[in-house]
Amino acid sequence: MDKIKEHDYIIIFSEGRKYCVKADRNRNFSTKAGNIKLKEVIGKPYGIEFKKHFIFKPTLEDILLFGLKRKTQIVYPKEAFYISHKLDLKSGSKVFECGTGSGSLTMVMATHVAPSGYIYSFEKEKKFYELAKKNLESFKLYNNVKLFNKDIQEGVRFKNFDAAFLDVKEPWRYIDLVYSLLKPSCMLGIIVPTTNQISQLMSAFNNKFGCLEILEFLQRYYKINPQRIRPDDRMVGHTGYLVFARKVIRKKKKND
Amino acid sequence: MDKIKEHDYIIIFSEGRKYCVKADRNRNFSTKAGNIKLKEVIGKPYGIEFKKHFIFKPTLEDILLFGLKRKTQIVYPKEAFYISHKLDLKSGSKVFECGTGSGSLTMVMATHVAPSGYIYSFEKEKKFYELAKKNLESFKLYNNVKLFNKDIQEGVRFKNFDAAFLDVKEPWRYIDLVYSLLKPSCMLGIIVPTTNQISQLMSAFNNKFGCLEILEFLQRYYKINPQRIRPDDRMVGHTGYLVFARKVIRKKKKND
Amino acid sequence: MDKIKEHDYIIIFSEGRKYCVKADRNRNFSTKAGNIKLKEVIGKPYGIEFKKHFIFKPTLEDILLFGLKRKTQIVYPKEAFYISHKLDLKSGSKVFECGTGSGSLTMVMATHVAPSGYIYSFEKEKKFYELAKKNLESFKLYNNVKLFNKDIQEGVRFKNFDAAFLDVKEPWRYIDLVYSLLKPSCMLGIIVPTTNQISQLMSAFNNKFGCLEILEFLQRYYKINPQRIRPDDRMVGHTGYLVFARKVIRKKKKND
Amino acid sequence: MDKIKEHDYIIIFSEGRKYCVKADRNRNFSTKAGNIKLKEVIGKPYGIEFKKHFIFKPTLEDILLFGLKRKTQIVYPKEAFYISHKLDLKSGSKVFECGTGSGSLTMVMATHVAPSGYIYSFEKEKKFYELAKKNLESFKLYNNVKLFNKDIQEGVRFKNFDAAFLDVKEPWRYIDLVYSLLKPSCMLGIIVPTTNQISQLMSAFNNKFGCLEILEFLQRYYKINPQRIRPDDRMVGHTGYLVFARKVIRKKKKND
Repeated sequence: MDKIKEHDYIIIFSEGRKYCVKADRNRNFSTKAGNIKLKEVIGKPYGIEFKKHFIFKPTLEDILLFGLKRKTQIVYPKEAFYISHKLDLKSGSKVFECGTGSGSLTMVMATHVAPSGYIYSFEKEKKFYELAKKNLESFKLYNNVKLFNKDIQEGVRFKNFDAAFLDVKEPWRYIDLVYSLLKPSCMLGIIVPTTNQISQLMSAFNNKFGCLEILEFLQRYYKINPQRIRPDDRMVGHTGYLVFARKVIRKKKKND
Repeated sequence: MDKIKEHDYIIIFSEGRKYCVKADRNRNFSTKAGNIKLKEVIGKPYGIEFKKHFIFKPTLEDILLFGLKRKTQIVYPKEAFYISHKLDLKSGSKVFECGTGSGSLTMVMATHVAPSGYIYSFEKEKKFYELAKKNLESFKLYNNVKLFNKDIQEGVRFKNFDAAFLDVKEPWRYIDLVYSLLKPSCMLGIIVPTTNQISQLMSAFNNKFGCLEILEFLQRYYKINPQRIRPDDRMVGHTGYLVFARKVIRKKKKND
Repeated sequence: MDKIKEHDYIIIFSEGRKYCVKADRNRNFSTKAGNIKLKEVIGKPYGIEFKKHFIFKPTLEDILLFGLKRKTQIVYPKEAFYISHKLDLKSGSKVFECGTGSGSLTMVMATHVAPSGYIYSFEKEKKFYELAKKNLESFKLYNNVKLFNKDIQEGVRFKNFDAAFLDVKEPWRYIDLVYSLLKPSCMLGIIVPTTNQISQLMSAFNNKFGCLEILEFLQRYYKINPQRIRPDDRMVGHTGYLVFARKVIRKKKKND
Repeated sequence: MDKIKEHDYIIIFSEGRKYCVKADRNRNFSTKAGNIKLKEVIGKPYGIEFKKHFIFKPTLEDILLFGLKRKTQIVYPKEAFYISHKLDLKSGSKVFECGTGSGSLTMVMATHVAPSGYIYSFEKEKKFYELAKKNLESFKLYNNVKLFNKDIQEGVRFKNFDAAFLDVKEPWRYIDLVYSLLKPSCMLGIIVPTTNQISQLMSAFNNKFGCLEILEFLQRYYKINPQRIRPDDRMVGHTGYLVFARKVIRKKKKND
């Protein structure tokens, strides 16, 4: 049975809410249901009921939602989980990412391609780069992320990626660059919040990418009372539109 | 560059539609856009344009949607991709699955836990077991699925699973069994098509599982014309409700 | 041009928010954008810009959302507007309603059947009856609602209704009664919040009602910036399920 | 009890499907459930069971969905029903409509403002004008629609409308015109299928209209089996985006 160790990040579940807390020996944590001296849970098994709370081991989703420090909107689990499979990641894949942000998608993809795959993630803003770095160190699952504080417009000296993802304001500016980085037939994924960006993006693929898809997800949670099954009153209305495309090799046209 | 080999499954993309085809030397394949002699594409790189078609290497999603033989409704990519991350799978995880069906979720989870993890998947119906076996052999990505043609009510001789998933008609009958198989704090996921099943299920968790969640996904595709961005006219309205719960260790009550 | 009169209810629109206010000569009203002496707007035309605010005449929707006093969840515009047409109301229709609540649907239907139609609305709870009465008096558009503080189980002495609507906890208890009140071929509508209620209800129609429909609406608002068209971050996830059925005249069976 | 008369349009309901049929004495109608000689149902009451079918009186929704002849996409009930209330229509309202199309929204609004209100509906395409005219004559409920085969760019000689609706390709071209037709504080509604049109439209309102809203509806039907409550497998993914705005009277700016 998996035991809670000092300095582990743990999930305290109390009255339907989750808190991600570092199990430091000298720390107390209070919820509406009462106070927990963290030293008392150290050494106990994960999953245990403790003074009206439950202590769980954080899942990847828990880390994204309750563990990460954020300065921007993160790529949420409902999109990140889909993206990582849609990009056809597997153990050993080599992935290009631009726009590390807080590192949420980076962590999902890193988990997915471990142990032998790698994520090469680029972030031009110093403050996000530092944030992502800290987040990745705090919740390090694997050592398979290479983080760069760099504008990719200046050039990327890696190649032959199995997949690519862009989470940047003007993704249409990077289509040619990504084309040169990606293996043929492989997937490029992009997230944009607005329909205006979709329009601009769809005009930029030219004949370099094919098999275009645009999609979005609505995720709806339900109340758990068996006698009163019904959706929650409120839900997330929008996180982003996802665009996917595959690198193609076009025939040369006579007048090219 | 990845080349098309004889007997590879390939994706032929033509006028917005995908076909999953085995590249046999003596076979022809016809779409509305024309006829392809498959021997002519063997040896060419994936991603190539060929007589108004594109030839892609099948992604995991392509395999689920266009490759698998089905006798039942499959767990669709939008749910399967979410489930595999939500269950917190990672390289090395040992996963219990009951209700192999056509093997779609099995393949997603097997890809996710490779190379060192394992899926133990149980299917009591002979015909589905045979179908899943054939599907897994056709599109074998890894050798990490153990398939059983067995009713789990007769007992399961494995233990200490990192995650469990049920896709069966009456999942509430298996809650106690799954409890005994799963490590504490770990996730159980379940898919059911009807709200009546949700009600019955939510009553069955008792105090063995906590942190219950019920949710569903709506996935909406958009048309790709940059000048006329808009959702498709029709969409999938329902595939299933997802239920998640985590194994907890309750305090013994005095009168237990 | 329609002018603001003293004691009119008016809508003050300020920075994207609406307030429904009675235009009393001695009253002031403050928003973040500043303070309005209501006597200064009396006599001005509706639609006018006034000190960074706009003053509108309340629409029916404004009244439902910002004018009504509530003690319960109201039937929201997105459902109420659909219901009133779905029930095939028209000028002159005679409508039965049970569960007046705060009177929101009552007002929509009353507007719809005016000037010659009537809504007969029953509410057994004294406090809701009083509330609905007050709301109807405050925003009286027409004099075509007959309100009853009565449990319909005790009997209803009216007949030959063109349509009926139930917004009660256990609508299945009233199916036989409603059958006796409604003209053949006419529509019964029902709203329930939970799927358990849908199940129980669908078993109660027997062979008295046909052409059953169950449906729900998701309404999604978008941000209005032309350069950044996108849905709002949050949306309403659930208000209720709508059920519709039509009274049928079955053939007598031999052994009836 | 309302009886079926010769030449009435009737709804034949058979195995979950509806057919809108004219009750002509010499006509037969066949469904999978069998053949009906229409002369045999004439004189019978609406709502009756007849040889495994039910005969209903068409509701307004039945007429829109199963009765109207179409040459274009109609404004569907889920939008039309919302629009007519959102525009704050009531008995007596005078409404401007441009883009009559097949006349579906026209019929909804005409029903709503009857008996004393009027719809002035403009359609520049001869073929749609003729179609709408025919539809309105076939299902005439009221005599309160004035139909014009005219491009409104050439001028509209009516004024002081209580509400306006545009269903045209380039609604931004008509904003100034509609402004001149509408009473202050009153609502303008617009339907457009694409997000590109929303963007262009939102830039056109200038300071003539305020209180802008953009929204869309998803309508989800459920299967009616009490033991297996669940949404339908497929649903409508998109009909159109709705835009609403209210005419405002701006203060003159010094340099105007």
